[in-house]
Amino acid sequence: MAKSQPVSPLAPAAFPDLPVVKGVRFAAAEAGVRYTGRPDVMLAVLDPGSTVAGVFTRSKTRSAPVLDCEAKLGPDRLGGACPEGAAFLVNSGNANAFTGRAGEESVVALCRAVSAATGVPEGRVFTSSTGVIGERLPHDRIEAVMASLAGKLDDTGIAAAARAIMTTDTFRKGAGRTVEIGGKTVTIAGIAKGSGMIAPDMATMLVYIFTDAKITADDLQSLLSGMTTETFNAITVDSDTSTSDTLLVAATGASGVDVGGNGAFAAAFFDVMLDLAKQVVRDGEGATKFVTVRVKGAASKDDARRTAMAIANSPLVKTAIAGEDPNWGRIVMAVGKSGADADRDRLSIWFGKILVAEKGWVSPDYREEHGAAYMKRPELTITVDLGLGTGTFSAYTCDLTHGYISINADYRS
Amino acid sequence: MAKSQPVSPLAPAAFPDLPVVKGVRFAAAEAGVRYTGRPDVMLAVLDPGSTVAGVFTRSKTRSAPVLDCEAKLGPDRLGGACPEGAAFLVNSGNANAFTGRAGEESVVALCRAVSAATGVPEGRVFTSSTGVIGERLPHDRIEAVMASLAGKLDDTGIAAAARAIMTTDTFRKGAGRTVEIGGKTVTIAGIAKGSGMIAPDMATMLVYIFTDAKITADDLQSLLSGMTTETFNAITVDSDTSTSDTLLVAATGASGVDVGGNGAFAAAFFDVMLDLAKQVVRDGEGATKFVTVRVKGAASKDDARRTAMAIANSPLVKTAIAGEDPNWGRIVMAVGKSGADADRDRLSIWFGKILVAEKGWVSPDYREEHGAAYMKRPELTITVDLGLGTGTFSAYTCDLTHGYISINADYRS
Repeated sequence: MAKSQPVSPLAPAAFPDLPVVKGVRFAAAEAGVRYTGRPDVMLAVLDPGSTVAGVFTRSKTRSAPVLDCEAKLGPDRLGGACPEGAAFLVNSGNANAFTGRAGEESVVALCRAVSAATGVPEGRVFTSSTGVIGERLPHDRIEAVMASLAGKLDDTGIAAAARAIMTTDTFRKGAGRTVEIGGKTVTIAGIAKGSGMIAPDMATMLVYIFTDAKITADDLQSLLSGMTTETFNAITVDSDTSTSDTLLVAATGASGVDVGGNGAFAAAFFDVMLDLAKQVVRDGEGATKFVTVRVKGAASKDDARRTAMAIANSPLVKTAIAGEDPNWGRIVMAVGKSGADADRDRLSIWFGKILVAEKGWVSPDYREEHGAAYMKRPELTITVDLGLGTGTFSAYTCDLTHGYISINADYRS
Repeated sequence: MAKSQPVSPLAPAAFPDLPVVKGVRFAAAEAGVRYTGRPDVMLAVLDPGSTVAGVFTRSKTRSAPVLDCEAKLGPDRLGGACPEGAAFLVNSGNANAFTGRAGEESVVALCRAVSAATGVPEGRVFTSSTGVIGERLPHDRIEAVMASLAGKLDDTGIAAAARAIMTTDTFRKGAGRTVEIGGKTVTIAGIAKGSGMIAPDMATMLVYIFTDAKITADDLQSLLSGMTTETFNAITVDSDTSTSDTLLVAATGASGVDVGGNGAFAAAFFDVMLDLAKQVVRDGEGATKFVTVRVKGAASKDDARRTAMAIANSPLVKTAIAGEDPNWGRIVMAVGKSGADADRDRLSIWFGKILVAEKGWVSPDYREEHGAAYMKRPELTITVDLGLGTGTFSAYTCDLTHGYISINADYRS
């Protein structure tokens, strides 16, 4: 198991003061799945009438909990409103991935236990597991604390829930917004865990977002799916993809405010998603720099995305950033390998507001010492203008440091 | 500039005793392009009647020398036999990439100088440059040693040429074979440089292979193109792609042996390509393990390749190997993310001959201590059977270590 890491230098000052979302209650407990002396299970129970939507890893070796969630949301992933409500159960320490039939049996057992303790039907219980893979989930340990969890459900328990789902994370991740619509307040609050894009061992990304807005499952899924590309699919720590990545959203409707098609709600929802996504990058394994890669002028939106992700995923770009090296040549390299349309002589590159390269060569006004001074900042923006069209995309990444190697290589599992 | 690195622990014991290829002569010199006190330019001159073929980086930000080589080989990349022969000029220390129009002017100047010194027409002079990018190539320094180079051309100079093209390489890379065909001997000898798949700074891959076989440019290009996928495109150090990767092949015909369609020649040629490709991985930046990733049972050849490359490129797999951690869960993860067809319950994984996982879970006979003992070896084979079809592919990679970070992050360019 990984050694405990110091808190990321890029962590926010404190866990945010999240608004209470009416209609959802949380509880956390120590089940001792793998860790001891810390909470490792969280339960969230949604009031009757709540709608649920989700997006999941596209891995072909998806974990048993992911497969179960997908089956329950159905081919259209629509968790329609249900008179009995819904529940999310999440454990850390064991991913229940690549555990054969035993893994599926664990999911069934846990859903049954949640249902018995809360009255939510099994078909509306969604579980996630994160931690080591290939080891049987000791679900009996989680069942043993189920009555206790159900007994302490509370609408202010979200911070404790954020703690329970952490693995190699060095800080709790939460984000919230409130929106005034027609004189009423709608709240959104979410939590996340993840310290790689990735990592089947410890760094799977899990995200749970709750709102008391009234919205159909169909609209909720559309909102979520439409915003995933520019939030959780725009971040990368090391380009690997987890077997377990899960993003679940629930709307309780308790505010009584119908938000279907409401732009202010959509904007706030996007803010919460992007805030949580960036926090995952800020906790990237070994990260010391938070980097925004802005691409504009691409021949298409997809070309902009490919270019931004090629830069954000390049080990050579990421090691240069770790070394505070204004190595724009590596950015040229990454642009070239992305597969997107590019023309050397139309390409421009900026570090922050410093124009580094243009017209196929280094800018005549660029001074290496300016670039070097900029690279010392903890938060960097690299802008690339491909000069070909109107496609834009922003990706978010971190540097690749000795810390990443230490976390992932310097211990035996 | 990178600090000098110790010789890779995976290096061959010595530079091989390469056979002399009739019809090609070599020279190396110190031009002081960037390095001092070491040769940094090589010239190879091919006798009249030689054919030339090549493959190049697919980067959209290709260097000026690559663009010039491609233009000279034409849309079909066929360097047909030429009465005046051909020449290859290569410098290390400066990549002449992203240098705008000045870069193109440098290539023209160098080709003119080679032509003047050797009598080879400019249109048959092929140049490569490797080293820092974005800095104007001081081609006058190379022109200054051109007469000296031309004056010392020798058919035994290939080892010195291998030295001259090195950048961050820690050892010279060469491979040769001889084939008896119809009672006559045909020789093949090649040299390479590269210590990342890539790296625009210092680790571009350059390969030059020579043979005295008689073969049309068309057949030579077919042979080369057909074998690239399973050799130079089957290796990866860090997944980045250079602006300058170049693989040039020349056949002088001096053996008088026509090898068109000859299987023994093709096999020997493949051996030379694979040998050189593996040497590039053995010099991977920071590498301490040489890893063969064998995939079989894939639904198609392309699926096998995608799966093998996903494993070989995964930072999490590569850091686990660096840590001698038999972390098969990360291999399951990489299989899942490759995009190739996969079925958890049909997947099997071996470390060497040790069956680790099968039927969707860890093998009942697998013992962690066996896997851990195997991972201590310097040369590892990971085999994955997808259990779906007959597609196979082998990829070659190295581990991802603190050494890689040090080489790429711990200095300022």
